[in-house]
Amino acid sequence: MAGHATVRRDDDVATLWLSNPGRLNAFDKPQWHGLAAAVAAVTADPSLRVVVLRGEGGAFSPGADISEFESERDTPERAQAYGELMDATMEALRDCPHPTVAAIDGPCCGIGLAVALACDLRICTRRSRFGVPVSRLGISMALPELKLLFDVAGRTATLEILLEGRVFGADLAHHMRLVNRIVADDGLEAELAATCTRIAEGAPLAARWHKAFVRRVADPAPLSAAEIAECYRCFATEDYREGYRAFLDKRKPVFRGR
Amino acid sequence: MAGHATVRRDDDVATLWLSNPGRLNAFDKPQWHGLAAAVAAVTADPSLRVVVLRGEGGAFSPGADISEFESERDTPERAQAYGELMDATMEALRDCPHPTVAAIDGPCCGIGLAVALACDLRICTRRSRFGVPVSRLGISMALPELKLLFDVAGRTATLEILLEGRVFGADLAHHMRLVNRIVADDGLEAELAATCTRIAEGAPLAARWHKAFVRRVADPAPLSAAEIAECYRCFATEDYREGYRAFLDKRKPVFRGR
Amino acid sequence: MAGHATVRRDDDVATLWLSNPGRLNAFDKPQWHGLAAAVAAVTADPSLRVVVLRGEGGAFSPGADISEFESERDTPERAQAYGELMDATMEALRDCPHPTVAAIDGPCCGIGLAVALACDLRICTRRSRFGVPVSRLGISMALPELKLLFDVAGRTATLEILLEGRVFGADLAHHMRLVNRIVADDGLEAELAATCTRIAEGAPLAARWHKAFVRRVADPAPLSAAEIAECYRCFATEDYREGYRAFLDKRKPVFRGR
Repeated sequence: MAGHATVRRDDDVATLWLSNPGRLNAFDKPQWHGLAAAVAAVTADPSLRVVVLRGEGGAFSPGADISEFESERDTPERAQAYGELMDATMEALRDCPHPTVAAIDGPCCGIGLAVALACDLRICTRRSRFGVPVSRLGISMALPELKLLFDVAGRTATLEILLEGRVFGADLAHHMRLVNRIVADDGLEAELAATCTRIAEGAPLAARWHKAFVRRVADPAPLSAAEIAECYRCFATEDYREGYRAFLDKRKPVFRGR
Repeated sequence: MAGHATVRRDDDVATLWLSNPGRLNAFDKPQWHGLAAAVAAVTADPSLRVVVLRGEGGAFSPGADISEFESERDTPERAQAYGELMDATMEALRDCPHPTVAAIDGPCCGIGLAVALACDLRICTRRSRFGVPVSRLGISMALPELKLLFDVAGRTATLEILLEGRVFGADLAHHMRLVNRIVADDGLEAELAATCTRIAEGAPLAARWHKAFVRRVADPAPLSAAEIAECYRCFATEDYREGYRAFLDKRKPVFRGR
Repeated sequence: MAGHATVRRDDDVATLWLSNPGRLNAFDKPQWHGLAAAVAAVTADPSLRVVVLRGEGGAFSPGADISEFESERDTPERAQAYGELMDATMEALRDCPHPTVAAIDGPCCGIGLAVALACDLRICTRRSRFGVPVSRLGISMALPELKLLFDVAGRTATLEILLEGRVFGADLAHHMRLVNRIVADDGLEAELAATCTRIAEGAPLAARWHKAFVRRVADPAPLSAAEIAECYRCFATEDYREGYRAFLDKRKPVFRGR
């Protein structure tokens, strides 16, 4: 039995389900290929408003499938080739134009945590568990994944996670900014639905621009005149006219993504 | 009735009051021009020790005055011209040489929040409300304002604020670093006075250098020898001699800003 | 009586003790030279797994020894020469290849806090006190030290610390990320021992790479192909084979640092 990932669509929300039964959705090569295909599919569909990433069977993912290490990652060259598959998938997830939400329950560790960090928002249950204990396996986290962690958690938390190698609970994950919020163990569906509704109530082009702009301002290079001009294009959209008119009319806007 | 901003001076503290009666101090063009003039006035006065920014009538500011959108921001070109007025004002506020404190009560949203983020410190009452729900208007936050938000709140909180578009309370704003501290609804005057006193007890040139140095280290470019040499100029000031002698004499120093 | 620093070794953990009796370990020139020598000694010893930095007599350090200001830092030139000694020492501490832990009890202020921030992790007792009240001495924090503070605490907290000049407690220090965790006043030895054990259970080469990688990703310049290739070298180590085999055998790995 190998891992895989499936896409299920419900109205304008697509859910990507990680699945590796009996292994808590540990990432093996088939699951990476499945996730890459799923991300490509949702990226290509402009009608979506939200993409959710979650795991089947009460787990997000405990990380890499260690049983593959001897066969797939036994030399630096093979480890790098495998790493490039992982990083291309996570980069595609991070660059997905739609807002992405990781819904975390149970273990969310190692490369599983990195995948969650490639999403825009992260909601977890109280019983969820986090960490990157790769130094116990004798290896370091690769630079692109470590950058995902650093960009979210900052210097102090990143060093703590990697040097101590602990697996820890939701409160510390929240303090470290690894998750946006914690819900009761039986509250994930309700909060996830409410979050998707809030996101879907915004204009979809605004969400795309906001994602692109957050990437841009992470670079300290000064903003060019062309970049600043570009960020006012939203004022030429139909959705802008709908938005302020609905506000002035005290009604809910209906955005069409154009 | 249009918005405006007034400066009131009390000893070495200047307070900039936002005012747009009946609109909770929503920002219209006259209020932007008023704020720009007020910031220019306090910047030009070297005798000040602290600048406070606050709103009249139990509100900070709920953001832009939407009733202007049809007339002032109906095309990308006009929206950009309006944006340049806003951004020049916020840049001048961020670059004000004196320490700046936003005293927040009630709504502090959208461009109102951006103005608060251009200040150095932010104190809020428990009943204050925060958010940037511009995607509900069909627009994105412009890059310079989004950068103010990102520099304070980081990647995870910025994406949450912009993609979900919620209006939220003081505790979440504090967790996201949007405010330095929360006070009881009737405790703002006392905490603001204590904060201004603490700031005014420091040497004013040290405050100016600290503000300039924080801007500098946000850029990861290596520090030059000239920049490092410059940061020891404080040891040539009269206030330095006063400072360590007062410390050794166990008395309060009297700084003169030279 | 002048300050000094001593190294005591216990198995694969080296502890650097700051000591300036009667002055709560305030930093004078001899203590800087002592710390520089201690950092050089532990850096040169590849058999170490963890380096702890702490102060004797129930204090970490309240900062600079002010009694030296008149003799050693009375001009910008002499202050800079002194600053270069401090910064070279803190840079060597930050670049130490071994994981470093500051164990904080009592005052940890000014340049004492900067030294703690040059370590990878920081644990403090509840009674610990933090702050950088240098503006009360009429001076600014030098750029390299301010960068240590900014990289850990970010823009909002750095401005608060420097402009208000308060000395504050452990909870605020924790909120600002200045410390990783707070323990009861009598709980420091136990937590420090547990932390050192957790760090020492990881592969030492992984720790070195993780420290170097965190430094690298703080720079937003894109990762080069050579840098990415380098980060897979760990898959060629003996410790990697030991690590995953131990995991699959459900036993504890024994890492040898090669």
